[in-house]
Amino acid sequence: MAAIQQSLSTSISSSISTFLGQNKLRFRNQNVSMPGKTSGIVRCVATPSTEKTSYKTQVSRNENLAKLQAGYLFPEIARRRSAHMLKHPDAQIISLGIGDTTEPIPEVITSAMAKRAHELSTLNGYSGYGAEQGEKQLRASIASTYYANVGLEEDEIFVSDGAKSDISRLQVLFGSNVSMAVQDPSYPAYVDSSVIMGQTGQFQKDVEKYGNIAYMRCTPENGFFPDLSSVPRTDIIFFCSPNNPTGSAASREQLTKLVQFAKDNGSILVYDSAYAMYICDDSPKSIFEIPGAKEVAIEVSSFSKYAGFTGVRLGWTAIPKALLYSDGFPVAKDFNRIVCTSFNGASNIAQAGGLACLSPDGFKAMMDVVGYYKENTQIIMDTFNSLGYKVYGGKNAPYVWVHFPGRSSWEVFSEILEKTHVVTTPGSGFGPGGEGFVRVSAFGHRENVIEACRRFKELYK
Amino acid sequence: MAAIQQSLSTSISSSISTFLGQNKLRFRNQNVSMPGKTSGIVRCVATPSTEKTSYKTQVSRNENLAKLQAGYLFPEIARRRSAHMLKHPDAQIISLGIGDTTEPIPEVITSAMAKRAHELSTLNGYSGYGAEQGEKQLRASIASTYYANVGLEEDEIFVSDGAKSDISRLQVLFGSNVSMAVQDPSYPAYVDSSVIMGQTGQFQKDVEKYGNIAYMRCTPENGFFPDLSSVPRTDIIFFCSPNNPTGSAASREQLTKLVQFAKDNGSILVYDSAYAMYICDDSPKSIFEIPGAKEVAIEVSSFSKYAGFTGVRLGWTAIPKALLYSDGFPVAKDFNRIVCTSFNGASNIAQAGGLACLSPDGFKAMMDVVGYYKENTQIIMDTFNSLGYKVYGGKNAPYVWVHFPGRSSWEVFSEILEKTHVVTTPGSGFGPGGEGFVRVSAFGHRENVIEACRRFKELYK
Repeated sequence: MAAIQQSLSTSISSSISTFLGQNKLRFRNQNVSMPGKTSGIVRCVATPSTEKTSYKTQVSRNENLAKLQAGYLFPEIARRRSAHMLKHPDAQIISLGIGDTTEPIPEVITSAMAKRAHELSTLNGYSGYGAEQGEKQLRASIASTYYANVGLEEDEIFVSDGAKSDISRLQVLFGSNVSMAVQDPSYPAYVDSSVIMGQTGQFQKDVEKYGNIAYMRCTPENGFFPDLSSVPRTDIIFFCSPNNPTGSAASREQLTKLVQFAKDNGSILVYDSAYAMYICDDSPKSIFEIPGAKEVAIEVSSFSKYAGFTGVRLGWTAIPKALLYSDGFPVAKDFNRIVCTSFNGASNIAQAGGLACLSPDGFKAMMDVVGYYKENTQIIMDTFNSLGYKVYGGKNAPYVWVHFPGRSSWEVFSEILEKTHVVTTPGSGFGPGGEGFVRVSAFGHRENVIEACRRFKELYK
Repeated sequence: MAAIQQSLSTSISSSISTFLGQNKLRFRNQNVSMPGKTSGIVRCVATPSTEKTSYKTQVSRNENLAKLQAGYLFPEIARRRSAHMLKHPDAQIISLGIGDTTEPIPEVITSAMAKRAHELSTLNGYSGYGAEQGEKQLRASIASTYYANVGLEEDEIFVSDGAKSDISRLQVLFGSNVSMAVQDPSYPAYVDSSVIMGQTGQFQKDVEKYGNIAYMRCTPENGFFPDLSSVPRTDIIFFCSPNNPTGSAASREQLTKLVQFAKDNGSILVYDSAYAMYICDDSPKSIFEIPGAKEVAIEVSSFSKYAGFTGVRLGWTAIPKALLYSDGFPVAKDFNRIVCTSFNGASNIAQAGGLACLSPDGFKAMMDVVGYYKENTQIIMDTFNSLGYKVYGGKNAPYVWVHFPGRSSWEVFSEILEKTHVVTTPGSGFGPGGEGFVRVSAFGHRENVIEACRRFKELYK
C-alpha cells in the first residue's frame, strides 16, 4: 500500500516533467492525440505553433525530427498514465508498463557508491575527469565477467551511461548514409535514433513503417526469429535478444544463422544484450559466443535491468578490434573518437557501483534481484495462460508478450488502463509487428504484480 | 608530494585507457604524430589499417569521422603526458593542462550523494528511471538559482550528464544541414561535433580550418570579442564566455551586440556559460541577462568547474520556449524529443549532488572552491607577468592565456613539458587563432601551482 502510494506520487512528479511544458498551454495536447479506435498507431505528428509570435529565427527545423510520428513511446505512456490519474484521482495505479525496475539496489552495491561519493570529499579520494571509455578496472571487470570465455579484452569495452545513450552514439558513429534493419517489433530507440540521424525516409502511413528501414517481422509463427531469406541487405542490423518487447531469446542455432547472414552481407550487427542475465536456458548470453561474431558484431548492454540501475545510469558497449569498415579501418577506433568528443564518461559514482555489481557478493545479489523479477514473470504468465490467452516470452526475459488477436494494441492498452488501472505497453508502440499484442513488464513489487493479476482475472475472466 | 604521486598514478591508469588500445601494436602511434617544428597543428590523419585481415565488413566508414584531423585534443595531451612519463619516470609531473579539477567536493555535497546512494537500497528510497529532462526539484532549483532574474522557468531547463554531452546532443538536434560559427580559439568540442555531424567541409590545411565553419577570430587586438561585421551569417553561433581557452569574459555591451547580430541574422546562439561563476566583474553571468536573448539563445552549463563534478557528471541546458525555428516550431520541443530518445537522464545520485550544490550551504561551499582556483589563477598570472610575458584571461576564468609571439604553441607546450615537467595546453589545439598561445589552467593543488610557477620562472627567467 505504501509502495502504491509512493508509486503514485512519483508518477505525478515525473510525468509532469516528462512531457515538456505539459502544464503550459502552448505545448498541451499539441503533440499527442488519443488513439484512434480502428488504427493501431497514435497519430501524433507535431505541427508548427500557430500562435502569433513576435520573432522566429531563420534556422530551419531539422527535417529528420519532423519525420518522427509520435512522442518517444515511454514518455507518451507516462503522459497517458498521468491523464488517467487526473481522471481517476483515487485509483491505485499499478505500472507494469515502461520496464522500470522497482526493487532496491542491493546494499553491497549502494555502499560502494556511497563510499566513492564520500571519498570524493577527501584529498586522496578525489578524482576529476575519468577516462571517457570508463575506468580501467571496471572495463577489465566487465571483460572478465561477461566475455572471458569469448576472449574480448578490456580495451574493447566502452563504459557508458546506459544502452540508450550508446545506441544514439552508435547512430552518430554510422552517420546518415547507412541503411538499417530492425526486428519488428523492437525497442523503439533503434528506429527513432535512425530517423533522427536521417538514415530513413518518411513515415509511410499505409504500412506504418519508415522508408529505408528493413523491418524483420518476428511473430509467433516464426518463433520470433525473422525469416532472413526475405530480409534485404542493410549496412546495420539491430538485434535484441532476449528481445524487448517479445521476451524471446534467440537460440544458438538462430544466432549462428544471424551472424552468417551479417557476414554474407558485410553488415554490422548491433546486438542488444541488456536482458541476457534473465536467460535460464542454453540460449547464448552474448553474441560473441557465436564463432566469427567478432568480425561483424557490436554488443550493447546495461546494468539497468540487472542491478536496478535504471536511475543510476551505467552500461557498456563492446566493440571488437576485429570489426572493420570496408576500407579496413577499425570501427572501435572511430567509436573511441565519438566517445571522446561527445561524452565524458559515466559518473564515477555509478562506475563504483558497477564494479561492486561484479564483485562476488554483488553478482550474487544482482542474480537475486533478477530471480525476484523472474518469479513475477511466472505469475503474470500463469495469469494470462489461465485466462486462455496465448503468452510469449517470459522464460528468458522480464517481459510477457500477450496476444489479443484481431484487436488494436492501443485499444487493449486503454481498456486495461481504464478498467484495471494497470499500465502496460501497447505492442504496436514497438513497430507494426507488435499490433495485437500488449507487453506486460515483470518489474514491480510482488504485491503489485499479484494485485494487477487479480484485476486482469477480474477483467478477462 | 602525496598529491603529486597520486597524480602520477592516476595519470598512468587513465592515460592507458584514454587512448584505445595504446598498448596494442595495431593502434599504437598510427593515429598520432609528433608536432612539426614549424607547423602549429598536429598532423594526425587516421589512415586505414594496412594489416592483412581475414574479413572486412562492407559498411563504409562515416566520411565525417574521416575528416577529423587529430585525436580529440585532451586525450592527445594525456597521451603526450604519458609518453613523457615513460621517458622521464622520475619526473614530478604537474598537470595544468586539461582543465581537470583537483580539489575535493565539499562534504555537504558528497554527503547528499552518499545519502541518495544509500536510499536506493531501501524500499522507500529506491527510484528507477527518472524524467529524461531531470528531476523536477533540480530543474526548479537551477531555474531559481541561476535564472530567477531573467524569468526562465523549470521546464526550460534540461538536466544533463555534462555540457560536452549536451553540445553533441544539440548538434544532433540541428542536424547536418546547418552552418555554424565559433570563436577562434574555442573549446574543440564545438568544431569536432560539427564535423562529426557532417555540417562542415574538409579540413583545409593551408588555413587550418574546416570548410563551412565561420571562425570568429578572438585576439588581444579585438579584446577577444570578434569583429562581427566580418562574420558571415550562419544558422548556429557557438559562443563561450568566460571563454575557454582565452579566459576572457564578454561585457554586457559586447553580448548585447552579439544577441543583436544573432537576431539580425536569424541565427541560434549556443552560449556556453560553464565558467560563469568565476566572473568577478559586472560581465553577464548568463546570456539571458541580455534583453531579447530568449528568442535567439540556448545556454549550456555545468557543475564540473564549480563543484568539482568533472567525474560526477552533471550539467544543464536552458532552452527558452520563445526560441523558435523559422516555421515557428519550438526548438525546446525537438530537443525534448532528442533527450527522450537518446538519453535517459543524468545519474540520480549526481542529481542529488546537484541539488545539494544549490542549497545555501552547498552554494557557499561551491563558491569557496571557485575562490580557491581563482587564487591559483592570480599566482599564475603574477608569474608570467613578472617574466615579461603578456597574459590574458584569468580575471573572470580559471584559465590564463599566455602569449609567446612568433612561436608555435605545440613547440612551447613541448618545451615546457620537457624542461619543467608541467603539462599545459597548446593554444593552437583550440583553433588557428590560438597559435602562439599556451593555456595554463588554474585547476591544481596550491602547492603544485606554486611549484609549477617556480619552474616557469626557472625556465623563462
